[in-house]
Amino acid sequence: MSPKITGELLRQLRQAMKNCKYFSEPIQAYIIPSGDAHQSEYIAPCDCRREFISGFDGSAGTAIVTEQHAAMWTDGRYFLQANQQMDNNWTLMKMGLKETPSQEDWLISVLPENSKVGVDPWIIAADQWKNMFKALSSAGHSLVAVQDNLIDAVWPDRPERPSTQLRSLGLDFTGISWQDKITTLRAKMSERKITWFVATALDEIAWLFNLRGADIEYNPVFFAYTIVGMNTIRFFVDLKRLSDPAMREHLQLDSPSKPELSIQTFPYESVYTELQAICAALGPKDKVWICDKASCALTQVIPKTHRSPIPYTPLCLGKAVKNATEIQGMKMAHIKDAVALCELFAWLEKEIPNGNVTEISAADKAEELRSQQKDFVGLSFPTISSVGPHGAIIHYRPLPETNRTLTVNEVYLIDSGAQYVDGTTDVTRTMHFGTPSAFEKECFTYVLKGHIAVSAAIFPNGTKGHLLDSFARAALWESGLDYLHGTGHGVGCFLNVHEGPCGISYKTFADEPLEAGMIVSDEPGYYEDGSFGIRLENVVLVVPAKPKYNYRNRGSLTFEPLTLVPIQVKMMNTELLTQKERDWVNEYHRKCREVVGAELERQGRQEALEWLIRETQLII
Amino acid sequence: MSPKITGELLRQLRQAMKNCKYFSEPIQAYIIPSGDAHQSEYIAPCDCRREFISGFDGSAGTAIVTEQHAAMWTDGRYFLQANQQMDNNWTLMKMGLKETPSQEDWLISVLPENSKVGVDPWIIAADQWKNMFKALSSAGHSLVAVQDNLIDAVWPDRPERPSTQLRSLGLDFTGISWQDKITTLRAKMSERKITWFVATALDEIAWLFNLRGADIEYNPVFFAYTIVGMNTIRFFVDLKRLSDPAMREHLQLDSPSKPELSIQTFPYESVYTELQAICAALGPKDKVWICDKASCALTQVIPKTHRSPIPYTPLCLGKAVKNATEIQGMKMAHIKDAVALCELFAWLEKEIPNGNVTEISAADKAEELRSQQKDFVGLSFPTISSVGPHGAIIHYRPLPETNRTLTVNEVYLIDSGAQYVDGTTDVTRTMHFGTPSAFEKECFTYVLKGHIAVSAAIFPNGTKGHLLDSFARAALWESGLDYLHGTGHGVGCFLNVHEGPCGISYKTFADEPLEAGMIVSDEPGYYEDGSFGIRLENVVLVVPAKPKYNYRNRGSLTFEPLTLVPIQVKMMNTELLTQKERDWVNEYHRKCREVVGAELERQGRQEALEWLIRETQLII
Repeated sequence: MSPKITGELLRQLRQAMKNCKYFSEPIQAYIIPSGDAHQSEYIAPCDCRREFISGFDGSAGTAIVTEQHAAMWTDGRYFLQANQQMDNNWTLMKMGLKETPSQEDWLISVLPENSKVGVDPWIIAADQWKNMFKALSSAGHSLVAVQDNLIDAVWPDRPERPSTQLRSLGLDFTGISWQDKITTLRAKMSERKITWFVATALDEIAWLFNLRGADIEYNPVFFAYTIVGMNTIRFFVDLKRLSDPAMREHLQLDSPSKPELSIQTFPYESVYTELQAICAALGPKDKVWICDKASCALTQVIPKTHRSPIPYTPLCLGKAVKNATEIQGMKMAHIKDAVALCELFAWLEKEIPNGNVTEISAADKAEELRSQQKDFVGLSFPTISSVGPHGAIIHYRPLPETNRTLTVNEVYLIDSGAQYVDGTTDVTRTMHFGTPSAFEKECFTYVLKGHIAVSAAIFPNGTKGHLLDSFARAALWESGLDYLHGTGHGVGCFLNVHEGPCGISYKTFADEPLEAGMIVSDEPGYYEDGSFGIRLENVVLVVPAKPKYNYRNRGSLTFEPLTLVPIQVKMMNTELLTQKERDWVNEYHRKCREVVGAELERQGRQEALEWLIRETQLII
Repeated sequence: MSPKITGELLRQLRQAMKNCKYFSEPIQAYIIPSGDAHQSEYIAPCDCRREFISGFDGSAGTAIVTEQHAAMWTDGRYFLQANQQMDNNWTLMKMGLKETPSQEDWLISVLPENSKVGVDPWIIAADQWKNMFKALSSAGHSLVAVQDNLIDAVWPDRPERPSTQLRSLGLDFTGISWQDKITTLRAKMSERKITWFVATALDEIAWLFNLRGADIEYNPVFFAYTIVGMNTIRFFVDLKRLSDPAMREHLQLDSPSKPELSIQTFPYESVYTELQAICAALGPKDKVWICDKASCALTQVIPKTHRSPIPYTPLCLGKAVKNATEIQGMKMAHIKDAVALCELFAWLEKEIPNGNVTEISAADKAEELRSQQKDFVGLSFPTISSVGPHGAIIHYRPLPETNRTLTVNEVYLIDSGAQYVDGTTDVTRTMHFGTPSAFEKECFTYVLKGHIAVSAAIFPNGTKGHLLDSFARAALWESGLDYLHGTGHGVGCFLNVHEGPCGISYKTFADEPLEAGMIVSDEPGYYEDGSFGIRLENVVLVVPAKPKYNYRNRGSLTFEPLTLVPIQVKMMNTELLTQKERDWVNEYHRKCREVVGAELERQGRQEALEWLIRETQLII
């Protein structure tokens, strides 16, 4: 992987920063956040501005360019990758390390007095704007909204915003009609005396209307906004997408069942002026709900006295707790996904010794096998198919120039998932097709202990996921090891593979309590830079637990693994496992064999079935 | 315990709330926080306003009185106690339970439109003022500062503010002179370009000047303020206290070694006007550090553009990391404290069967035995001496009307500690002097497992204490049990028994990372309402650990118990312990026997020594 040459681009950007065509005065620094106007994690090519200017294409990162410096903040998953993709014009700011300054502190340390720091107000979230604004103001600088995006100004061949075909989902997939979701939303609004709700997150809008798109690779969403009042629904989307009669029927555009369920449609771009019009007509007590992570531009349209910012919207919370139909769909999707992976691993076992399997061909094979499964739509994120040292690059994606051959001498880590119409998957397995070293096995076993500690944990109702994070690390910590990423994220149902508001991370304190029906990943890891990477990831469902006692009638919860793919016994040092942990592995493998075995048999995939049976032998 | 009758008092307070002598307009609600103008946790009798108005005397709680309602917010430690101490005029708001509204939400739900909510600005911390102000404003109400305290207005025989004799500590106890502490403070100020620092926390001021007082029971502090500039030190204290020649010598009041170490003294009350004078003379770039937990009254003296609020002051952080002299002192104090407790338990074992030991007499005996130890100053908090159901009242304090006799049929919980000139102790043991039930043993063993899980944890440098909290709960959670308090707090060295900025709690996210030299408590518990309470508390020192690996050279930490008092084996169900846990107990008891045994022998306390030897037999 060779770095992007950015000297000329940065020169042009710095010229734009001084050009009064964009802002009345020159600006001394320009912030380029990840994300789009919807604060999406995965973004369409037209929104990949931070990648365009720096070369770094990880899913998280913020670039700041000043007259003298260009710096990139990203987290532990991307340290190696960012270093490889960026040229010497860029300084990598390793977030999470003690010595790394925050963006604010760094700006204050490098800027001349009374500087102006610019940012595109559509791309920065309102809460981030607020923090940055405060910090800069208190140091005598100012944060200014530059309406024209300065990266776009130096990006002549920037792609167009996508507008893919929409797909409507019936009750057999969603469990709840969009009309009922609107009614539930309004009940929550009226409970909190809220008159308007502005939805800006793409997955929330897709979930609300039981619609899916393909505007962003891997994420079945589409560019839209929605504003819901107590009697009106305004839907902002490229209107061409609503011409199909089935779509008009789904949304009841031509014959709404009730007036308050009538959807008014508007062009995507008109959300700003429509929200302005709504706000101009607000009564003195009217309150508007908007997520504090929505864009600064849209948030500031709402007068402060009427604005009621919330860390998570009712749609985000509603979407996170899966209903019985969604849970059933997720289970089915995971069984199909396990079938494909069992086939993949059986195939790898056979092919690797021949020396003709690479990171890319293994990833392609995984995709091919998944695509044979019913209702397959696409991948849920770029497959991380990584051999040996590449495994330590946490979000590695094989490219032709980095592509490495799988051998019997190195650890192989594959983190992959798919979108099926009934659910979304995300699974990581780490395997060795020869003989792993004692150290590799030791690390794998600590990671496994952490995975089990979370998966088998019983905890009271109302517990937030971040309180479980240390369980995943205890065994690693005891040996002086650790990993620099969170342990789990929420997973959507045929939606984004990363979603809020729950998760398992030492970093997240604003997470919502776990409750039955939520679905998260459990994915501790260990990364030995330059040598190997280990990660073990299952998607797990929060379910009620029934321990011996029930303190204060609070009830207890635990996790049920939805992912049912064997964990390689060859990588375990079973002597380091407790009896309880061995029992967990055996019970998990029994379930894989029973459930996935039946499906493999039904699909007549004999080789994979034999592999599954071999890989799920009892350990003692 | 009979509740305080508060009908007439509340009537008077409500009259005062309408009296324009105190505020230009009637106020519809009045907030009575715990604490004094220094935001102390333990307070002098003259500051016990929340107790005076409600009867509830726990260490944490906020009362709010409106025209119709009187409500008290407190946490899980005090639910039972508050219910017993308050009459029917009061509603208990159980913090930490999902259904309990926040103070802000409750006020908004009960207040008529455009209400005024009053509070004494000296008693409310700046950060609490800010949150409350925001919440009330956004609901159309206002928070107003009522300069005269309205409780004082209805409290005719309110005690005077104490002014006890000051004690200076030499280098043999403190390890660092106050002059060096000032120099370190100024270095930190200059590093962050701060020109003034306002110290308001009493323990920080005591620590800074190596002085102790006795103004507040249990806490060796004295009422004072300090303002430190780069060249001046202003000390606000009752000037009578500085007349003693040794004191003047300690503070170098008459012949400062250097001009910048010359202390200017002022009366305690003049801090407000002096700070006003300082602020009037600030240059445009001057910044003033003040803790965001300092009083709203003092904070608001500093113009916002010059104010630099910090969650923890450099004194708080400096005080938390004990130096070698302080660590040595804390170790000595804990050995002496263990001697007293071994004697107590030996005596209890002998006396309880005679039926003449009560909660109060056991607590008195503990105090008497502690007072025989060298450099004993007093208790560090009111002894919690509780039998059977009283043990479930987390911060129970025996009173003549509740006093219960210790028997061989009930669990006994004693949580106690002392101030010695060389250190502060805080220890809880739970014992049975007959035959505990299987359930009592089971719960005790889960609590012990939690205690060990924290005490033996190895974790990376830079880890915050809240990440360890769940370790203390895992065994309880697995059986559906829990406890509604944090797991540990910082402990001062001959200072407050509760101190920041570190701790171990699911509630604290703003805690500072643990580092070697910090001292915290490790005290999980289990409380069966109406039946028994269990808590196991050691004070532990953060020390470097040397595990097998050292990921990214971060280094690791663990805890070393300073408390060395046997944990009753009779209460354990050793079958529920893992081999590692049994090894931990045996090693801990070996150390108790070796270290405390030697001291018991030196002091010739034979009976206690025999008890110690009996109680520290190996478990298998």
